[in-house]
Amino acid sequence: MAVDATDVAVRFSEVSVVTPRGDGTFDAALSEHWTIGGKPNGGYLLALLARAATATVPHPHPIAASAHFVRSPAPGPVVITTTVLRAGRTASQVRTSLHQGDVLCVESLITASHLTEGAAPYWDTGAPPMPAASFESCARLVPNLPTGLPVAIMEHVGVHLEPAAAGFTEGRPRGDGVLSGWLTLPDSEPFDPLSLIFAIDAYPPATFDVEFSGWVPTLELTAYVRALPAPGPVRVCQRAHVVADRRVDESCTVWDAAGTLVAQGTQLAGIRLG
Amino acid sequence: MAVDATDVAVRFSEVSVVTPRGDGTFDAALSEHWTIGGKPNGGYLLALLARAATATVPHPHPIAASAHFVRSPAPGPVVITTTVLRAGRTASQVRTSLHQGDVLCVESLITASHLTEGAAPYWDTGAPPMPAASFESCARLVPNLPTGLPVAIMEHVGVHLEPAAAGFTEGRPRGDGVLSGWLTLPDSEPFDPLSLIFAIDAYPPATFDVEFSGWVPTLELTAYVRALPAPGPVRVCQRAHVVADRRVDESCTVWDAAGTLVAQGTQLAGIRLG
Repeated sequence: MAVDATDVAVRFSEVSVVTPRGDGTFDAALSEHWTIGGKPNGGYLLALLARAATATVPHPHPIAASAHFVRSPAPGPVVITTTVLRAGRTASQVRTSLHQGDVLCVESLITASHLTEGAAPYWDTGAPPMPAASFESCARLVPNLPTGLPVAIMEHVGVHLEPAAAGFTEGRPRGDGVLSGWLTLPDSEPFDPLSLIFAIDAYPPATFDVEFSGWVPTLELTAYVRALPAPGPVRVCQRAHVVADRRVDESCTVWDAAGTLVAQGTQLAGIRLG
Repeated sequence: MAVDATDVAVRFSEVSVVTPRGDGTFDAALSEHWTIGGKPNGGYLLALLARAATATVPHPHPIAASAHFVRSPAPGPVVITTTVLRAGRTASQVRTSLHQGDVLCVESLITASHLTEGAAPYWDTGAPPMPAASFESCARLVPNLPTGLPVAIMEHVGVHLEPAAAGFTEGRPRGDGVLSGWLTLPDSEPFDPLSLIFAIDAYPPATFDVEFSGWVPTLELTAYVRALPAPGPVRVCQRAHVVADRRVDESCTVWDAAGTLVAQGTQLAGIRLG
């Protein structure tokens, strides 16, 4: 059952709070509600690191964020350390680390800059096709995947799949390796550059459109935030490219409700197929 | 004129030497021959960092490498520092920094693991189409781009463009934002996982197939190495997706001579268009 978002702190802005200690170190608490199989979502962790990074430099927007996942943290308290590599005129770079107790869990590099309000793309012919289905025609994915893993995050985050991409939910994957549709945050909170970093890892593995597997742990995740998003849900296209040697790469493209491409992601993950 | 590769040290294995000091620190020398407009190529720098990283852990192959470019170094001596974040059973993670004098130029994160010899892809339907033209039908790009920038690296590295992608060299870009063809290393040196990291940034900006611009400085570069390459030249497809707000993202896919997808790259760069 979906928890009422007004009763517990499950909004993105609530679960991604970072509290500065004043020396470039931040305290945070990983939400048990933003987990898959009890483990916090990778995009959520990278967004949290980007929030800390952008709090330390003059540039407000993370435009490129890369994380390498070292160990999977549990829900609960974590400490984020930041090191400003350069605070430049047009961009700043920050190294960030997420520790739980003495254990390093995630290390990331963040480049921050300024996204121009209302900037229209100069050329976007190379962008993949935007999901065409209306929000109303996309059914929300329920958190009872055949994998048996509890997916707490999907009780709060709305993954609304296009009908053509939803075959896997009834045991009929197409074999395309593409999941597409819409995404909403808890309590319909508007997206911002930080929650867009979560958005590029919010969908289930696109390999579910090929074949089910167990946990697909992200090894590396990179996000590019390209534009400030309009209010409303975003469109997502998550695409798997190659499964080989027990690893899979996926790309993700995110458009805002006005049809502007706002974020892109790529990841390499482990997978038990083949 | 092309310099004879046997006379000066321009081979990849020569220009990417890292010499350990014994404390996780390495000395290296950036080659003036591997530059664009006098600045070392970004993929070359990331490959150098990956060589240092994999020298510090039990896992021989970089499978994911992400760099954020802080300042552009000049050719000449640099110092690489490495910090092992975790030396695990199936993978290790290493943070690496490249300094020139006191100046931090590049920071990167490397995940190393083991690529299985002869592993065939389990599923690769999501891969982009492989360039179809034969090596013999692809003319080598000469280093006299209309931008006026000297491109020393292209006197040594062979970018052999498919005829359909070479229109921009005669002032007729197609508008697709795709450059594809073959790539050779100096002296026809065989590729390995380290030089594949260079390969994903070896081609000119794919935006040249849309419109010429000046220098397109890479802000972030991520490489995934997916398989051990067969001997011989590799096929490359470099693709631009969106130019917006003075930035462009590009993806790159690399196949070996046997047709196996061996590496993938993505980058965000600055661009003076729009």
